[in-house]
Amino acid sequence: MTATTAFARLEKVRATLKKDTLDALFLSASPNISYLTDCSSRDAYLLILQKRAFYLTDGRYLEESKKNLPGAFELIAIKSALFKEVTRLCKKTGPKTVGFEASHLSYSSYEKLRAALPIRIRLAPTQGIVEDLRQLKSEEETAKIKKAVLITIQALRHIRTVLEPGRSELEIAAELERFIRCQGARTSAFDVIVASGPNSCFPHHLTGERIIKNNEPVLIDIGVDYNGYKSDLTRVFFLGRITPLVRKIYTIVRQAQDRSLRSIRPGVAVRKIDAAARRYISQKGYGKSFTHSLGHGVGLQVHEAPRISRKEQAKVAPGMVFTLEPAIYLPGAFGIRIEDMVIVTKEGVEKISVSLNQ
Amino acid sequence: MTATTAFARLEKVRATLKKDTLDALFLSASPNISYLTDCSSRDAYLLILQKRAFYLTDGRYLEESKKNLPGAFELIAIKSALFKEVTRLCKKTGPKTVGFEASHLSYSSYEKLRAALPIRIRLAPTQGIVEDLRQLKSEEETAKIKKAVLITIQALRHIRTVLEPGRSELEIAAELERFIRCQGARTSAFDVIVASGPNSCFPHHLTGERIIKNNEPVLIDIGVDYNGYKSDLTRVFFLGRITPLVRKIYTIVRQAQDRSLRSIRPGVAVRKIDAAARRYISQKGYGKSFTHSLGHGVGLQVHEAPRISRKEQAKVAPGMVFTLEPAIYLPGAFGIRIEDMVIVTKEGVEKISVSLNQ
Repeated sequence: MTATTAFARLEKVRATLKKDTLDALFLSASPNISYLTDCSSRDAYLLILQKRAFYLTDGRYLEESKKNLPGAFELIAIKSALFKEVTRLCKKTGPKTVGFEASHLSYSSYEKLRAALPIRIRLAPTQGIVEDLRQLKSEEETAKIKKAVLITIQALRHIRTVLEPGRSELEIAAELERFIRCQGARTSAFDVIVASGPNSCFPHHLTGERIIKNNEPVLIDIGVDYNGYKSDLTRVFFLGRITPLVRKIYTIVRQAQDRSLRSIRPGVAVRKIDAAARRYISQKGYGKSFTHSLGHGVGLQVHEAPRISRKEQAKVAPGMVFTLEPAIYLPGAFGIRIEDMVIVTKEGVEKISVSLNQ
Repeated sequence: MTATTAFARLEKVRATLKKDTLDALFLSASPNISYLTDCSSRDAYLLILQKRAFYLTDGRYLEESKKNLPGAFELIAIKSALFKEVTRLCKKTGPKTVGFEASHLSYSSYEKLRAALPIRIRLAPTQGIVEDLRQLKSEEETAKIKKAVLITIQALRHIRTVLEPGRSELEIAAELERFIRCQGARTSAFDVIVASGPNSCFPHHLTGERIIKNNEPVLIDIGVDYNGYKSDLTRVFFLGRITPLVRKIYTIVRQAQDRSLRSIRPGVAVRKIDAAARRYISQKGYGKSFTHSLGHGVGLQVHEAPRISRKEQAKVAPGMVFTLEPAIYLPGAFGIRIEDMVIVTKEGVEKISVSLNQ
């Protein structure tokens, strides 16, 4: 990302502040700060005003920030306490109303900030100012996401050659964690899930020492971080014989994903995408076995807006990137989940694994 | 951990509630919930009263929870909204005052909870009720921590055979991530830091594609998760020639760690441990180059109480487990950090790498 892009994003936030009659915004959520500054921010904070923007961090990150922070931001070292510094900056710049990220700032941090600031400054809870911007990815962002997906697909292809009865789930995860880094991923986006046999019926199974057996499904859910951007895919592999029930369930889940994919186009209510998959699974008699929502946005975070669920209020818009992960879990037996990522385009939708020709 | 241990911990929380005149405690911090339930909790919540305790989670974790949750807890499926369920349970059990974790619950979650609960119920911010208990590890916990440290030491020994000029930082991290899982670690406690040459002067360097060269230090900071418990160690490796300055700085840092180690015994103010290392480094003229605190507690989280810093108010007590990680960073040149973990005993202190005889 260029400094220009960072500046354009900052200007969008400033426009929102103006619209919401806020003089300043205090940010504490790292992915939002990374988005606005193009620094991989950890333990950093932003105070944005119309004319100035301050990036606050502690001694551990100063050298790194001096090197990477775009010119639009003034670097402030947190010497003693964060909220003392924020107060000092507010006294210097004089905002009357300061917004904060209500879904991120803890109750006690809010109380500390409130206690530190002069009483004349009003603190205003805000929701999703930066998250909303982040929903619509730029070309530069989708290029990084596609690279993350490509590495993930390569890892899943590689693991077919390694997966065999007698190996433990952890050994398979170990090989995946090694492989993705050798392909240039900085890290995994979350702990790789390798769920063998009956463990596949736990949607967020903790990969463990279980030995993979013949004639059972092995569910692998893996995502990587490429230059800050994440991927998230799930595949089920079959060792040995596939029972008719497993085959039947797999087909239903795949069909459900197809239905959801075909329902996507700009302007459609996001909740209808979830409904398309859920209706099909319910019609087949497994509605109660699909125990989570259909998907979630992916970008700087592996779970971000929009949620692809019955509750989501948003409408599909070009630039959105999200997962489609219908599933059927049969407790004690097995679970099948198929997860792909899509990018919404002006014309419709692109399934990334397909558009990468992989 | 046995169900008895989980129950004993729950009873300690109940005793604190009684003392603080709280009728109930709502918990949202996963490590605290994992500690009290002996389940690896993600996306779960607890409501603890004197006579009953409820574990709330969503559809993704129900099967897992049915299998693992100790009998002291009643499993509640979050069907629509979390705070609706909490309100339903409160109406059923009738607490007048409900504590919540003020450092963890977000401002907006607090607002939602406040809006959902009947106005007659008082919400009281609490701080560190479970975190304080977690500071003092049981024998069972220290056994898991020692196993995590052992795997980490083995990984650091293994990597000596792999580390050579021409390899990238990421390749080294890849091999470490693979190795620890093959030794039974469930995951790494944080992204492994491999910081070569000048990158070693960034305390939290993001491991990248830089190729390791001859005649430069390579700093590796690694921790693992073994059955939920973490480790955290840092070593600096030297490829080829060691310059006199690097040797001098390394010796100062090692001596500083020794000073801090010798200052530890039950009853001493924790801040004096930080002071012991910092004073020595300052005497040698590098005080400004030691840009962070000396260490932090380690357990279910890789960073937990107590902080080993100038600001910490706690006193050293048997059962505490924490890091000692003095460092000197010379921007543009290199950084040296040496990090070990210690357990405070009744008699004094045990450096884990030494007591493991590794």
